[in-house]
Amino acid sequence: MHRRIRLTLQYDGSAYNGWQVQVSEPTIQGLLQDCIYGLTGERVKVIGAGRTDAGVHAIEQIAAFDSGSGLHVDVIRRALNAMLPQDIRVLGVSEADSDFHPRYDARSKRYTYIIATVRDVSPLIYRYVWWVRFPLDMAAMNTASAALLGSHDFSSFRGTGCGAKSPVRKISSLEVARLDGTIFLFTKVQGDLIRVSVEADAFLRHMVRNIVGTLVEVGRGKADPAGLKRILEAKDRKAAGPTAPAKGLFLEKVIY
Amino acid sequence: MHRRIRLTLQYDGSAYNGWQVQVSEPTIQGLLQDCIYGLTGERVKVIGAGRTDAGVHAIEQIAAFDSGSGLHVDVIRRALNAMLPQDIRVLGVSEADSDFHPRYDARSKRYTYIIATVRDVSPLIYRYVWWVRFPLDMAAMNTASAALLGSHDFSSFRGTGCGAKSPVRKISSLEVARLDGTIFLFTKVQGDLIRVSVEADAFLRHMVRNIVGTLVEVGRGKADPAGLKRILEAKDRKAAGPTAPAKGLFLEKVIY
Repeated sequence: MHRRIRLTLQYDGSAYNGWQVQVSEPTIQGLLQDCIYGLTGERVKVIGAGRTDAGVHAIEQIAAFDSGSGLHVDVIRRALNAMLPQDIRVLGVSEADSDFHPRYDARSKRYTYIIATVRDVSPLIYRYVWWVRFPLDMAAMNTASAALLGSHDFSSFRGTGCGAKSPVRKISSLEVARLDGTIFLFTKVQGDLIRVSVEADAFLRHMVRNIVGTLVEVGRGKADPAGLKRILEAKDRKAAGPTAPAKGLFLEKVIY
Repeated sequence: MHRRIRLTLQYDGSAYNGWQVQVSEPTIQGLLQDCIYGLTGERVKVIGAGRTDAGVHAIEQIAAFDSGSGLHVDVIRRALNAMLPQDIRVLGVSEADSDFHPRYDARSKRYTYIIATVRDVSPLIYRYVWWVRFPLDMAAMNTASAALLGSHDFSSFRGTGCGAKSPVRKISSLEVARLDGTIFLFTKVQGDLIRVSVEADAFLRHMVRNIVGTLVEVGRGKADPAGLKRILEAKDRKAAGPTAPAKGLFLEKVIY
């Protein structure tokens, strides 16, 4: 009797070559599968809701695997956390319906990207931000982002190697906002941080990072905020801006 | 014409063998001295206000060195930050009086220690907390800490190898408080975090970590909150509790 086990995960992606299992590099999926093998003796495939790139973090990633083990879900959580390194945590384990699919069943996903325009990035947060060394015009970035809302062909923001059948995605929310008075545990982190939050039904490869890279070009005055419509219409990756670094990106939530 | 240069530093101590320079291990002082040599060609000694242990972090460390270089203080800051790794930042550089001494001139220093009693420590903060796997009685910890306020012989909380002439220190403030709704950049960190803040005129080696280790013994019911007076009077390291791990400790502020 097999059960489908659902995992809620959080991780700091700094040390990993992304979600997807690889032969010679440590990945989140690979480590989870190794630990599950250590726990149950089963070679399982762990499916994730978002296949995060190398260096991308997750506040809440959802994953699932099938197991014939009768272990209680709390035992699975504690055993996996005892085996996993501290930068990957299983926050929750539950039994799911046998046809639950973390990615296909997701109604939408939310990503957050953090940009620091501070003079010097605090050692407490440097792993989690893109340090941009020039001021950004947030109003221009917000104007530009409005053109991306709704259903579009996002080919201009699609990374090479993307396996999706269709380049059409629907962005339901895209916000550029200042993070004020950012607190790290007990202390205020100095300087200006900008948060880009984007929610969509699904994402193409590098889509968030390509959107952020393009919005930063707008914010620093190198691209016209009114040009986003034209970039979309070009359906050509070369029309958009550069890919923002992975380390500022967080998979924030998966909505079912 | 030599100037005394004052540095305000912040660092994540995870990767370092503490403040004090060592031949074969990376230290904060050692890296700073190497970078200053790279910048000015001078072999200087950088004096720090607090000689933080291996793994201890600093929100605000103050340091100073003498230099014959005529470089502008802003140039020094930018050059050092360009050479230093991202987990050490020079937040400020200024000229100080020629007799300024970061440690001897400090009126007091404040340290903060973070304890996590959560079920699972978030990957976003595990570098910065001591994970204690049992609930802690905060009222008992606060009762116990009151006995440490004021001037005492802190021999029972003094680590081996401490070079201080006198074991007497004056604690002006010692608080145990819950950290509520802790925010990491844009997300709430789940679980219970406890903050121990202590301010004193100066500290013996491992003094804060030994106080925290002892307060945790009280908090988990293994030591009597009324016993702190007796522990002080014993003037014997063996009378107090274990040394708390370095990674939960932050040098928070130096007061002049």
